[in-house]
Amino acid sequence: MAVPERGPRIRDLGEFGLIDRIAGLTGRAAGVDTGIGDDTAVLDTGGPRLLLATIDIQVEGRHFLTGRSTPYQIGRRTAAINVSDIGAMGGMPRWALVSLALPPDLAVSWVDEFYRGLNEELGRYGAALVGGNLSGSATIVVDLALLGEAERGRVLLRSGAQPGDVLMVTGTLGRAGAGRFALDAGLDRADPAVAACVTAQLTPAPRALEGIAVAQSGLATAMLDLSDGLAGDLGHICERSGVGVEVDAALLPIDARTRAVADRLGVDPLRLALAGGEDYELLFTAAPSAVEPLRSAVAAVAGVPVTVIGRITLPQSGRQITVDGVAQPMTAAGWDHFRTDGERA
Amino acid sequence: MAVPERGPRIRDLGEFGLIDRIAGLTGRAAGVDTGIGDDTAVLDTGGPRLLLATIDIQVEGRHFLTGRSTPYQIGRRTAAINVSDIGAMGGMPRWALVSLALPPDLAVSWVDEFYRGLNEELGRYGAALVGGNLSGSATIVVDLALLGEAERGRVLLRSGAQPGDVLMVTGTLGRAGAGRFALDAGLDRADPAVAACVTAQLTPAPRALEGIAVAQSGLATAMLDLSDGLAGDLGHICERSGVGVEVDAALLPIDARTRAVADRLGVDPLRLALAGGEDYELLFTAAPSAVEPLRSAVAAVAGVPVTVIGRITLPQSGRQITVDGVAQPMTAAGWDHFRTDGERA
Repeated sequence: MAVPERGPRIRDLGEFGLIDRIAGLTGRAAGVDTGIGDDTAVLDTGGPRLLLATIDIQVEGRHFLTGRSTPYQIGRRTAAINVSDIGAMGGMPRWALVSLALPPDLAVSWVDEFYRGLNEELGRYGAALVGGNLSGSATIVVDLALLGEAERGRVLLRSGAQPGDVLMVTGTLGRAGAGRFALDAGLDRADPAVAACVTAQLTPAPRALEGIAVAQSGLATAMLDLSDGLAGDLGHICERSGVGVEVDAALLPIDARTRAVADRLGVDPLRLALAGGEDYELLFTAAPSAVEPLRSAVAAVAGVPVTVIGRITLPQSGRQITVDGVAQPMTAAGWDHFRTDGERA
Repeated sequence: MAVPERGPRIRDLGEFGLIDRIAGLTGRAAGVDTGIGDDTAVLDTGGPRLLLATIDIQVEGRHFLTGRSTPYQIGRRTAAINVSDIGAMGGMPRWALVSLALPPDLAVSWVDEFYRGLNEELGRYGAALVGGNLSGSATIVVDLALLGEAERGRVLLRSGAQPGDVLMVTGTLGRAGAGRFALDAGLDRADPAVAACVTAQLTPAPRALEGIAVAQSGLATAMLDLSDGLAGDLGHICERSGVGVEVDAALLPIDARTRAVADRLGVDPLRLALAGGEDYELLFTAAPSAVEPLRSAVAAVAGVPVTVIGRITLPQSGRQITVDGVAQPMTAAGWDHFRTDGERA
């Protein structure tokens, strides 16, 4: 491939540096309530609801391994990570388009199973594939664009957090990261703790209905889904909202199975919770008085717990995390596809 | 990559066989006026207009070559081929999402130039990028999802052609295919005929505004854009409309420059017009009385000519093409990414 001799490379900017650069390069169109920089775009078609749009590309060997995931699981996961983005805006998934680049010698049964997983996950929300595109390729590439709809006045962006708000998270943290390391280490998947973590990694359960419940309550001020890891994703809320944050590590919801697997791996479960990534839980902010109503609203969907893990502060306070009683600066050790993985967990 | 031992491979089905199979595998959702099988999906958000959605993946080495196209050209072309699909439904491009899988050692300037081309082409229609996604990859993969809007009652599908309709095409045929072969053969791009064909190949000019004019007239019965080649794409209209067709090869609009390049290449220009592909002209049908009004409506946009090339027949008449006064069955020698390229031109 022809590469110019001089100038910076993509690896020099990193994923988020490149996103910032691209956001500065894009044009303008009518009907765009929110463009690049949130979980989804928010578009106004003039209809009764707002339109949400997101896209996510996955490359074999980077986002999934065909020797590790079945095509059914890859289909499920492909839908789930996009459903998670729609849900994190308070929207309901509606219509999906998928591009597949596939090796010509791939078995047709792979495609059948991939679509079975994709359709099953979309079908949970009454959503369906409405279009797609195919190409040949040396390796499998899957790209899903998902459209959703949200009530006007009930879309939750990353930008609304206020100093004094509390910071809440659904479910548990670090489990999907523990699952990834368990797979890397070849831990016995018959072990229930390992199995739970591996399932969280291979077929995450997005909190779309919980996200809608949070948004419908009208009580939350900002929300996103945790894809890169708490530390990195929390940075997005701080940047977009212009606030600081204090997280108390002792409050992070890390369940016994994640701790057991982390222990077996010799990995600090706190590192997994902060930077393991791929948990697809919801992170949201609200006034302290809203905690109990929000907890009830989320629990009413499917019983998923909500945990308060910190509070939003003034921007000049920066981003702090208290570990073992000691407050220290929190670094964004989120997943970055263009840098080394060494900084992760 | 783990590939099951038995069962058919993707190459055995081919692209269109796989699309048919996938269409049979997808679920159902509310608000879908038209799903898989047309140029775009047609979705109903309850707004004043209908929403159109399409996606297109391009893989380095298959759809473009970085040594042959500049990143600016790849960006232009990526937008153009999606704009063409929206226009072929009678819609206006509005919002785009792009996924990029890029080698980490790619120059940042490549990304800048790609976006410049993408934004320039989208900007012609007041459309813009509203979201995207990045990944690392060994080779460049570009996937664009484009949303458009069309007036209710003015969307043109592939399925409305009626026996007795005439078949019309915008612009000229075979030029992009001639350009591709000219590039393959290393013909001198300073030659004006070669330059015209190469430009048609690298940065096609989609007929979106012409498509809107055709749809707004209310006179056409079916339309699509020519991406695979006339012979293959015409088959889509016949299948979706349940009709036959007679094409008169002597009527196909093949311009002097395309003929000159074909002559130099030793290629039959008729083969280029039928199966060269990538012309991104509009193919549409209407009653004979509608030809002149449609011609005027299309010419009013930017002067692009409309040519009558045949007529729609009863399904039992099949698909015929008259070459040198002899009617013969027309085969769909359209582009198929999973078969050999030998059948093309």
